[in-house]
Amino acid sequence: MDQNLNAEAVTLTKTFCAGLAATRLGDLSVAALRAARRGVLDWIGCALAGSGHKTITTLLDVLQETSGRPQATVLGRNLRLGLLDAPLANGQMGHVLDYDDTHMGGVVLHTSSPVLGALFALAERAPVSGADFMLAYAMGFEAGVRSGRTAPGHHKGGWHLTGTLGSIAAGAAAGKLLRLDPQRLAYAMGIAATQAGGLQQNRGTMCKSFHAGKAAANGVLAALLAERGFDSTQEIIEGEKGFCRTYSDVAEPERLTEDFGNGWLIETNGHKPYACGVVLHPLIDAVIAIRDRQAIDPAKVDEIGLRVHPLVLSITGVREPATGLQSKFSMLHAAAAALIDGAAGVAQFSDAKATDPTIAALRRKVKPVADEKLRRDEAYACIAVGKERHEIHIAHATGTADNPMSDKQIEGKFLANAAPVIGADRARRAVDWVGALEQRADMHELIALVA
Amino acid sequence: MDQNLNAEAVTLTKTFCAGLAATRLGDLSVAALRAARRGVLDWIGCALAGSGHKTITTLLDVLQETSGRPQATVLGRNLRLGLLDAPLANGQMGHVLDYDDTHMGGVVLHTSSPVLGALFALAERAPVSGADFMLAYAMGFEAGVRSGRTAPGHHKGGWHLTGTLGSIAAGAAAGKLLRLDPQRLAYAMGIAATQAGGLQQNRGTMCKSFHAGKAAANGVLAALLAERGFDSTQEIIEGEKGFCRTYSDVAEPERLTEDFGNGWLIETNGHKPYACGVVLHPLIDAVIAIRDRQAIDPAKVDEIGLRVHPLVLSITGVREPATGLQSKFSMLHAAAAALIDGAAGVAQFSDAKATDPTIAALRRKVKPVADEKLRRDEAYACIAVGKERHEIHIAHATGTADNPMSDKQIEGKFLANAAPVIGADRARRAVDWVGALEQRADMHELIALVA
Repeated sequence: MDQNLNAEAVTLTKTFCAGLAATRLGDLSVAALRAARRGVLDWIGCALAGSGHKTITTLLDVLQETSGRPQATVLGRNLRLGLLDAPLANGQMGHVLDYDDTHMGGVVLHTSSPVLGALFALAERAPVSGADFMLAYAMGFEAGVRSGRTAPGHHKGGWHLTGTLGSIAAGAAAGKLLRLDPQRLAYAMGIAATQAGGLQQNRGTMCKSFHAGKAAANGVLAALLAERGFDSTQEIIEGEKGFCRTYSDVAEPERLTEDFGNGWLIETNGHKPYACGVVLHPLIDAVIAIRDRQAIDPAKVDEIGLRVHPLVLSITGVREPATGLQSKFSMLHAAAAALIDGAAGVAQFSDAKATDPTIAALRRKVKPVADEKLRRDEAYACIAVGKERHEIHIAHATGTADNPMSDKQIEGKFLANAAPVIGADRARRAVDWVGALEQRADMHELIALVA
Repeated sequence: MDQNLNAEAVTLTKTFCAGLAATRLGDLSVAALRAARRGVLDWIGCALAGSGHKTITTLLDVLQETSGRPQATVLGRNLRLGLLDAPLANGQMGHVLDYDDTHMGGVVLHTSSPVLGALFALAERAPVSGADFMLAYAMGFEAGVRSGRTAPGHHKGGWHLTGTLGSIAAGAAAGKLLRLDPQRLAYAMGIAATQAGGLQQNRGTMCKSFHAGKAAANGVLAALLAERGFDSTQEIIEGEKGFCRTYSDVAEPERLTEDFGNGWLIETNGHKPYACGVVLHPLIDAVIAIRDRQAIDPAKVDEIGLRVHPLVLSITGVREPATGLQSKFSMLHAAAAALIDGAAGVAQFSDAKATDPTIAALRRKVKPVADEKLRRDEAYACIAVGKERHEIHIAHATGTADNPMSDKQIEGKFLANAAPVIGADRARRAVDWVGALEQRADMHELIALVA
């Protein structure tokens, strides 16, 4: 193997980075700009809702010991930490409730927690306009989702993509915000990808959202190093020992640049109406829709039959969750709690609900079946009560690209998430501020509102 | 898949951690204690020799911007950084010259840069005795090498093991130093492994040694989080989506605990006489031995024929190195420089030597052949000068378990590395101090000597 270490060489990764570097706000579509506004608002709400979680408190106990200089704001905590520490905290709090946006364009990636965790910290290093912020954010989607597409076996291999692809996305977005040239952007991607980690084995533990925080911090570090000329391979994605061949049994490197600029991936970002693993959403939609149609006494239910995509069983197979975090990966819990409460918000995945005996009893009546013919946003449910059968088919779960949440729904979700932490007035002002994001001169005004 | 999230469950990882937690200094062999002393001394020397490298200066430019509280010493730089930042710097400087110790017990792992990078920082958080430090250090070898053995396809897959296994080793060692119970040690391993990264594609770049620094920092963060009850899976190594199945095409999880306590892996640690990739060492031994036997005019050499283990070609295949870092992964460069200079130290792998036209001309005469029948510490060389043929066979390279450097050689290497940075007097005192490591009350005395 002769590695391509020649800095002058034209490589696929550098070609991609040249595209990132050349893209201007004017190149983005109206849909991309709208998606950026929605994404920023929804993510801040999720982070604020997660900011008081015991996972975050534990993390902050450590970071307050180890971090020094107050350089960047930890959302919702009236706290500032160092430039590499605040992204860890913000990235993790954005993902801790599993309530943050999800891109399903060939990969399942919670892009905003890594990317915005990184960008919000850098926006306090030097003033950043809303326009530059949105542009960097959108480029993070390009880097993360496209890198994921080069490695189709990546998720099956055991990786938590929000950790791995999230690192790459955060590094590229951070590098874009710092206006790195194509060469240094390639270094940023190389440094970010070589830090990428996150094992699916950690689903249901505090580590799952930690992956998002680490990805954000990895991205900031990568961009700051690259800015100073710290180098990496020129071929981090496509190289023989690079990302797509190491993290996946199948490699399609050319997908990194395929159709670049012909539409933007941020346009198809999805937002979650429910605070749990996205694969659960179609079945929750189904159970709630049946319940909305007619009153059902949970105590009399004989069976909740579910027909779902096979990923639901492999990702959310926890049978007896002991904690709220575990319950977010339990299809049995999601179905049972949704039928009893008619909801699947933050409250339905608390520690108390995870061990609630009524829910636990109903969980045992949930009978899931995998069906490879279903899409990932599709589900069938059949609830049996005595001789009655209540059936429904959900074609596209709420919050997916084919059935998106409305702007009004996103705003409602944000206010519900943010108001308890920063107050209704500030939450309202944040909605208005983000509504004109591309005209804002300094992101710090927004940060001050949600600190 | 029903993940085992029950905190009460007995898992392989927890059984292993129970072994780590129960081990006392008195359980270590005389050979293990000697290896610990040699390892600490050699590693400090390598870190000091690397402390002025431009890679480290670039890294420190960033860390001095982002790090705040001066909690832990950066070796050789008269600088203190935060508890998560100093390990990054020290771990990277230990490995930047590719001169640090190498364990070849089924995996190729530079254990000390991640592990000691982590432990030296924590030794400034609260006073630590030499005995406790050595014990934690030895347990780092157990965790790193044994985790590697569970994943036999790990290196072939593209990973730089010093980044991946180094994270696990550093997390376990740091957890041991903090005296975590088996449950929390398992969390520390889980948090460390879920951060593990490092791609071989980055060989020859600044990122290669960065992997070691990140591993050290990952390990400290993992242990500090675990200490406070931040949880992880109980089965990070053996789980269906855990380390050995995700990072390797072949999984042998039971090797984690196999024969635990029956001898210690630190005993077979190797120390490098040459400042470059360890697979090059047998061929360098060969070239220098021929040169020592009789005078050879490099200008008259027609060919340097080499027969080597296949890994030499796959790992050190750089043909035209442009930098010193790249030259450390060029078998052609190593053979040529060794024949001209009769040495393969730090000086032979500088930027200047990498582009020296005399060495470059001789590089083109090096003809390597892979031979699967050779061991990794074995090589044949045949130097052709006109009609003369000078041949040699190296059975075990210097510095490997079967042909170790003597204590005197390690001491000489340390003094050569350390004296230019901290002065001959301090270097001498460090040798004496480490010579009685297990009796020392506070590691901080040593840190003050080498700061």
